[in-house]
Amino acid sequence: MNFSHKYWMKKAIEQAKLGQTPYGAVIVKSESEYITAFNTTKTDGPQAHAEMNAIQKLAQLKPYISKDLKLYTTFEPCPMCMSALVWAGIGQLIYGASIEDAAKHGHQIHITSQDIAGKAWYDIEISKNIARQDCLKLFEL
Amino acid sequence: MNFSHKYWMKKAIEQAKLGQTPYGAVIVKSESEYITAFNTTKTDGPQAHAEMNAIQKLAQLKPYISKDLKLYTTFEPCPMCMSALVWAGIGQLIYGASIEDAAKHGHQIHITSQDIAGKAWYDIEISKNIARQDCLKLFEL
Repeated sequence: MNFSHKYWMKKAIEQAKLGQTPYGAVIVKSESEYITAFNTTKTDGPQAHAEMNAIQKLAQLKPYISKDLKLYTTFEPCPMCMSALVWAGIGQLIYGASIEDAAKHGHQIHITSQDIAGKAWYDIEISKNIARQDCLKLFEL
Repeated sequence: MNFSHKYWMKKAIEQAKLGQTPYGAVIVKSESEYITAFNTTKTDGPQAHAEMNAIQKLAQLKPYISKDLKLYTTFEPCPMCMSALVWAGIGQLIYGASIEDAAKHGHQIHITSQDIAGKAWYDIEISKNIARQDCLKLFEL
């Protein structure tokens, strides 16, 4: 129960708040082994999305079977982050609100995570709308 | 003459050789101000493509007008790197060989740089096949 999608998404939301942006991410290996990250584009440059910052820390989870990792993120990953997920070989993506939701607040590259997953060389399971309303509220902070 | 596309692509190729991979990149602000980088995925993780490593160092070129920057890369950027180019607001992409060329040597995410550029909120000029043969040879190193 404690380790449902909602449990991990809550952690991603906490990360977003910590970074004072709507974007937080968690990569889960097991109940006790996971990486957290938030968006740091203001200080680290345009590539420093929450998911990228998490993927950059992947070595902390070694050894791991990449296909068994799960990436949780408050908003659907943009094509940069989704492609990074593919390069990392992560098997499962779980997100809150969509790129279309985020696009109401600024520029987005309108390519869905499913579009990118469809071009990968392995199967990626995608779950969406997890705690979506709570994720949308992150734009009100 | 010295500062033609081929001049900068030569620098990108030098970077690739330095990193002992086929992938090198240069971001050019002016004749004397530019960033160089190569692929470091073996040591830094799956997101450490040459273009990402270059974009991560963008602050070194400050102040700059992002639209005036040019990104040179030995191979067409994958959707991760191309989307990072878009987030960085870079106005011009110049590449050697294509994603299709690279795909002969391993997995690729088959979305072209033009596909990503077409989803951006500003115009991006793309030049391809610059020193393509020399770039292809980088796979023989």
